Amino acid sequence: MVEQHSHEELRSLRLAIRAGNIRGHTAGLAPSYVQGNLIILPAAFAEDFLAYCRANAQACPVLAVSEPGSPYVPELGEEIDVRTDLPRYRVFKNGQVVEEPTEITTAWRADFVSLVIGCSFTFDAALIQHGIPLRHVTEGRNVAMYRTNIPTTSAGPFHGPLVVSMRPLTAVDTIRAIEVSGRFADMHGAPIYFGDPKRIGIENLQAPDYGEPVPVLENEYPVFWMCGVTTQAAIEQAGLPICITHAPGCMLITDCKI
Amino acid sequence: MVEQHSHEELRSLRLAIRAGNIRGHTAGLAPSYVQGNLIILPAAFAEDFLAYCRANAQACPVLAVSEPGSPYVPELGEEIDVRTDLPRYRVFKNGQVVEEPTEITTAWRADFVSLVIGCSFTFDAALIQHGIPLRHVTEGRNVAMYRTNIPTTSAGPFHGPLVVSMRPLTAVDTIRAIEVSGRFADMHGAPIYFGDPKRIGIENLQAPDYGEPVPVLENEYPVFWMCGVTTQAAIEQAGLPICITHAPGCMLITDCKI
Repeated sequence: MVEQHSHEELRSLRLAIRAGNIRGHTAGLAPSYVQGNLIILPAAFAEDFLAYCRANAQACPVLAVSEPGSPYVPELGEEIDVRTDLPRYRVFKNGQVVEEPTEITTAWRADFVSLVIGCSFTFDAALIQHGIPLRHVTEGRNVAMYRTNIPTTSAGPFHGPLVVSMRPLTAVDTIRAIEVSGRFADMHGAPIYFGDPKRIGIENLQAPDYGEPVPVLENEYPVFWMCGVTTQAAIEQAGLPICITHAPGCMLITDCKI
Repeated sequence: MVEQHSHEELRSLRLAIRAGNIRGHTAGLAPSYVQGNLIILPAAFAEDFLAYCRANAQACPVLAVSEPGSPYVPELGEEIDVRTDLPRYRVFKNGQVVEEPTEITTAWRADFVSLVIGCSFTFDAALIQHGIPLRHVTEGRNVAMYRTNIPTTSAGPFHGPLVVSMRPLTAVDTIRAIEVSGRFADMHGAPIYFGDPKRIGIENLQAPDYGEPVPVLENEYPVFWMCGVTTQAAIEQAGLPICITHAPGCMLITDCKI
């Protein structure tokens, strides 16, 4: 059984992240709360980026959009400050990662808009509760993520490949995982593919583009879900002068109960 | 799109079956109506058989049980007469098939009880409506069914292997088929397995134990659903002096809209 976190436990976890004491991925943390991808970009690009997310809604389900200049997303938690409350960030300049800081207070700008996008970590707890073992959680790793050869729908400067997360599962667990995750329509829903990774443009499962690899056993299939890191691939392609995201797997943990 | 049948069309289909003009399987017929497996047995065995069905409810979901001696199941259709309204029957004596008649009026006994069990043909129409092609329907064949090495839960004299139906599907269609059929909890629900048939005791997909084979293409998986023919396997094992069932694939078409 997955441990149920009380709001007090969530609060101490957030304070530990805010203090810089947790700097790694959030897979398996606070399993009863919704986690999200974070994208911060200048207001001038926000409209196009929102259109991109809406055009690719299963990969990029929008949970919240901040007011310009505000680091708060009160609908996801009154106390959340997106500048400090993620374990690690990625700062992009002209489409290149230039820094991976643990807070972005000094980098903040008055024209920044924050978007929070749904994340598959949200249904990991439900999968585990249904008796489906998740290797990245049991091994304490970040989930493995891959760029595919499946294009997204472009909007303004934003385009790029669909990024997927992968969980290795037996046939029986794949069926149950499809049924369970299919109920999380706002968090990528059911998988989009399983089986031969080359068919979706993934050459080597042991060399993920983001996160950490896990072995796929002989009686297992790699099962692929759409992933909010799709937004990071689009940001890299767009080459914005500045943009800040969560580091892959280092998500925003919200106050929203699953 | 699947053709929607009106009640008038259903009625003429039933009269054609009753007249003996349709003697084959019912896959793809009257796709908006629930189909069922039929088992007729002496009242002395009915209680044990009902217990067997309830102990294996996903394989043998009970839709209706007649009064002893009555060939009617009014909750499934006021006009249905189970002695004439299926295209073909199997008469078992001491666990052996002795005859496959197209009606059983003269074989009827005053102590017969009829049970109707849910059938996967019921969700085939929903799968097709969701854009999932079903080869047995497009090729006009009966579905392929197999005895597995998975035991059922026994009750009284009734025991035997789980029988499954198989539909070959791509990975993407498998995922959608799991989501769609999972909503039909009373009609076997989601598949129980896909992939290597040997793992569930099926040696040769091209030699089904019931129904007709269809090819499985290189980019497809055989996907297996629980099947109401599980009841026939149990009846064979029990070796009842007399028992009558539908012939595999030659189902009772009910008045119940899906």
